[in-house]
Amino acid sequence: MKRRNLLRAGLVGSVAAAVSTPSVVRAQDKVRWRMTNAYGPGAPFYSAGPGSPADFAQRVSDMSGGRMEIQHFAAGELIPALEGFDAVRSGTIQMNAANSYFWAGRSFAAQYFTTVPFGLNFAGQNAWLYHGGGIDLWNELYKDFGMIAMPLNNTGIQMTGWYRDPITSVEDYKGLKMRIPGLAGRVYAELGVNVKLLPGGEIFPALERGVIDAAEFVGPYQDRRMGLHNAASHYYTTGWHEPQNTGELLINAKAWEGLPDDLKAIVRAAAQATTLESYSWSEAVNAEALEDLVTNEGVQQHVLPDDIVSRMREITFDVLEEKAAADPTVKKVHDAFFDFKKKWEGWAGISEGNYYRNIL
Amino acid sequence: MKRRNLLRAGLVGSVAAAVSTPSVVRAQDKVRWRMTNAYGPGAPFYSAGPGSPADFAQRVSDMSGGRMEIQHFAAGELIPALEGFDAVRSGTIQMNAANSYFWAGRSFAAQYFTTVPFGLNFAGQNAWLYHGGGIDLWNELYKDFGMIAMPLNNTGIQMTGWYRDPITSVEDYKGLKMRIPGLAGRVYAELGVNVKLLPGGEIFPALERGVIDAAEFVGPYQDRRMGLHNAASHYYTTGWHEPQNTGELLINAKAWEGLPDDLKAIVRAAAQATTLESYSWSEAVNAEALEDLVTNEGVQQHVLPDDIVSRMREITFDVLEEKAAADPTVKKVHDAFFDFKKKWEGWAGISEGNYYRNIL
Repeated sequence: MKRRNLLRAGLVGSVAAAVSTPSVVRAQDKVRWRMTNAYGPGAPFYSAGPGSPADFAQRVSDMSGGRMEIQHFAAGELIPALEGFDAVRSGTIQMNAANSYFWAGRSFAAQYFTTVPFGLNFAGQNAWLYHGGGIDLWNELYKDFGMIAMPLNNTGIQMTGWYRDPITSVEDYKGLKMRIPGLAGRVYAELGVNVKLLPGGEIFPALERGVIDAAEFVGPYQDRRMGLHNAASHYYTTGWHEPQNTGELLINAKAWEGLPDDLKAIVRAAAQATTLESYSWSEAVNAEALEDLVTNEGVQQHVLPDDIVSRMREITFDVLEEKAAADPTVKKVHDAFFDFKKKWEGWAGISEGNYYRNIL
Repeated sequence: MKRRNLLRAGLVGSVAAAVSTPSVVRAQDKVRWRMTNAYGPGAPFYSAGPGSPADFAQRVSDMSGGRMEIQHFAAGELIPALEGFDAVRSGTIQMNAANSYFWAGRSFAAQYFTTVPFGLNFAGQNAWLYHGGGIDLWNELYKDFGMIAMPLNNTGIQMTGWYRDPITSVEDYKGLKMRIPGLAGRVYAELGVNVKLLPGGEIFPALERGVIDAAEFVGPYQDRRMGLHNAASHYYTTGWHEPQNTGELLINAKAWEGLPDDLKAIVRAAAQATTLESYSWSEAVNAEALEDLVTNEGVQQHVLPDDIVSRMREITFDVLEEKAAADPTVKKVHDAFFDFKKKWEGWAGISEGNYYRNIL
């Protein structure tokens, strides 16, 4: 038996009592839940600090006067990083913090609730999720798995990434070795990029030693913390690949149904509040970090050339439309997402769009 | 004695018991508070619906299992529209929902916590408020009044407004009769605009009959609801005058100090959640309304010409710097706001700025 299976078996045993409790919790009962996390211990935003899963758990405790205590486990502390989906599904854990796109292997539709290349930014994604039917579709997707989900936090827009040498044309991507995960990696691969899937901790040494030529991680604050500016000096933007990134709070549906209404309201508000908290924090710390990187660390910031962005847009829609054509669930979510975007972008273009073009 | 004073005297009498209760509420006591509102009954966003003060009050009730009940009174239901500041200050009411810029007559510094022409948008303002020291300065301003404040909701960016005839140059503003309140009105006045301060309900008839030539209200959803497109067909954008608009939850400091910690946490989370809720809702309904106005109602949308925006920017900073020079409190808040903006706009320009320029 592998270590992973031993661990899982152990978990099932240890929470058997919790699973067999009556599904309705009385108003004065103390609720003790466990939340796992796809990200490791101590990572700002992802597991600790403003707007993080740990912050969320603390708020629930504070708001409920300690009546609901959610014990937070970072990746590896209770289960491995990406086993939260199965753990919550089976009911061994009540909650997991991650990103829905980690479950894109179960259904590609999960991608849309985290981020879509050339999709919606923070303003648009939250408008879609909260008031455009997005959260309902997310829950529909997870219904057969016996889970519900809601947005937990948001990084805002991300950076294209770090390059050892400047990029000037589409041809420069041929054979480039780049660390880039997920759907964006698929798009880069179509441009001839040699896509590398390195975990966070291996990015810096690989970039420094020239094992890779370029790397995407998050944004100025998180990237500086990892020291990426000490391995490459060209920092590119457009955020085409992740115009925002929504965290996912995944909850076992039976556990949720057993919560009293006041605790449900507390969990919902805490998750919504951390979404704003984390975005506000990210905007503030990214601003400080970018200024520092450019002023003090010799980083050169660049905007990806237009013809490269155009080509990536074409490839992205080829990939998305291929996925939608192959699966009715994906098509339903894809169409809902882009129908909303089409309506929203008229307003977005003349409102916030003009702010960034003419006012800022 | 005027009706207003009679009413005020009545209020003082009726809540004498509340004021004399011990300042520490026990954990199981039921807390009954009253919240007034500067906006009238039934107005979406401002007093009813997603992210409104009524929504906030409902969330607090839901989260506390009914242990904290906040009775919400729209303008005129308990006190007149703009008397919330004094009512909360005196302790006759525990909370008021409004915008801090209504109190700019007490201190012009209050302006910065609502909106600043050519200032911060939703992303920037919340970054400043929550993670750039903004809320601390807001509370410092109200300390001597015995009150605290926090953001309650947010309209997002607003529209420049409705014009009966197109605007092509700075000269077109000379003698133009326009409904535009507040600091923006001061800027327009410098351009020669005949500024009119009409309450919401009088805007439509005045614009329709030509008593005014132009009017600013909020954005597509709110403006359509008021029928402004039936009185003028040219709809201008840039949002220079209100790049976002933060609602204010004003709380009597003694009442706040008497709240148990769990209810404090609930109030804070409910206010933060409604900020995201209202912004997400506004983005969704404005998108739908703008599309409808342009597609079905014959509205022509325009961007304000660059030279006009440039001139308004000059005047705005003349006015702001004059106010800051005259008052050290204003200067402190002004400098903090624009120091933050200066740092943030480098990041904002290459991140969300590129999204609106190259990705959307």
